[in-house]
Amino acid sequence: MHCFDNETNVTSTTAGSWQGMVSPEWNIGTNPNGGYLLSLITNALSRELSHPDPLSITTHYLRPGIPGAECSINVEILRIGKTVSNARATLYQENKARLEVMAVFGDLSQSVGIDTRIPMIPPKIPLPEHCVDRTGSLQGIELPIMNRLNVRLHPDQAKPGESEVPEISGWINFTDGREPDSRSLLLFCDAFPPSPFSFLGNVGWVPTVELTVHVRQKPLPGWVLGQFRTSDLADGRMIESGALWDSSGALVAQSRQLGLILNNN
Amino acid sequence: MHCFDNETNVTSTTAGSWQGMVSPEWNIGTNPNGGYLLSLITNALSRELSHPDPLSITTHYLRPGIPGAECSINVEILRIGKTVSNARATLYQENKARLEVMAVFGDLSQSVGIDTRIPMIPPKIPLPEHCVDRTGSLQGIELPIMNRLNVRLHPDQAKPGESEVPEISGWINFTDGREPDSRSLLLFCDAFPPSPFSFLGNVGWVPTVELTVHVRQKPLPGWVLGQFRTSDLADGRMIESGALWDSSGALVAQSRQLGLILNNN
Repeated sequence: MHCFDNETNVTSTTAGSWQGMVSPEWNIGTNPNGGYLLSLITNALSRELSHPDPLSITTHYLRPGIPGAECSINVEILRIGKTVSNARATLYQENKARLEVMAVFGDLSQSVGIDTRIPMIPPKIPLPEHCVDRTGSLQGIELPIMNRLNVRLHPDQAKPGESEVPEISGWINFTDGREPDSRSLLLFCDAFPPSPFSFLGNVGWVPTVELTVHVRQKPLPGWVLGQFRTSDLADGRMIESGALWDSSGALVAQSRQLGLILNNN
Repeated sequence: MHCFDNETNVTSTTAGSWQGMVSPEWNIGTNPNGGYLLSLITNALSRELSHPDPLSITTHYLRPGIPGAECSINVEILRIGKTVSNARATLYQENKARLEVMAVFGDLSQSVGIDTRIPMIPPKIPLPEHCVDRTGSLQGIELPIMNRLNVRLHPDQAKPGESEVPEISGWINFTDGREPDSRSLLLFCDAFPPSPFSFLGNVGWVPTVELTVHVRQKPLPGWVLGQFRTSDLADGRMIESGALWDSSGALVAQSRQLGLILNNN
């Protein structure tokens, strides 16, 4: 079994209740990565709902998770429809809610409407072998998650403060050869360095307040290309919009988050 | 009292429970507009939370609302923080959940982090007097909401199927002279014609599955400029991204929705 599946495993306790273990292997510093915690929740959701794919997932990050400790996940189904299902879920550790999620699940292998397509074209960036590895530490903060994920950044954006635009792009996959699926795209949307850093430098701590990911298509095997851009920043609050494309160049996810950029003191 | 405030009025019943009346004056055809229903909920949320402004509001549209009927709104507070508060809410009619909302409230008059600004520049479009009124009917469907809102569309995008891009832009305000505030921006994000129509024609019914609005700044009085674009469409599922600017040209909101484009039969 691959690390991602093993370390996001959840077991049912009572109806609508799930239990899991928050692995310390996906940390950013001393906190579990938000996309990893979300992956535990979407695992529970996918076991509760008959539709296989997360189409829209909104997460509120209420409190940091605790690495190396158990978690419980409560799922409440809001509506079961023919085309989509809606549910909400809460991840708890030590009796405190850490993440609150609202989810739409559906079936990406089925068309639900008109045939017309409007594609979103991937940016042209250097191939993975000409990109720069995201390193396993940042200003003295250890990033154990970089043992689980390969993240290779556009060479013009890899050094904080040197990009001409507040944008980060690059390639991502699992280090152990696990291929991407619709659920892992939620993790991939939260594993690149914050896009303001490429432009502004490492200006501060960037907590995510809310993240919404839309999965658009099942990804083919291979590297996933990601591009994330700060579309606006004011009074310490930023909106970052992102997109992922699979190895065939098809758009597979879009993301948008409200984040804060707090001062370093 | 202005129509919007009068027709989104809610009164407290028991702790966390609110009651209101869904006015038929905000209908699109026989259904209340989604942004109007959301405005009833955000009114209840703003009365429960000490932070004044909706920073991030995600809505799942579970079932159509019922015009001219009472509604009840249940609010659950998830976390009260110094910078932001989190809550969820459900709007019920006839004992069925219609809208499910997850909200982050904060105070837009306060900076919470670094001083650096990254602005999002408004598009250049013709002035309101050179734009085209959104009419009060569409293919035989009556739009009573157009008695409450002025929506003036870019002349190159007002006729379905004639735009070169799947985009709609124009100006919006209240017909009775009420000035915009942070709460009314949520309504304004859901009051323009669907952006695919400008490019594809009136191809079908476009129900919103999920809509997230980020309010970025309190708007100054005057017309609000909106621009909405279909960023991708596949298998009948589309992502539409939008933005609103106030009369000074400042970005005041961003929006993104997952919608379906269903066949007309």
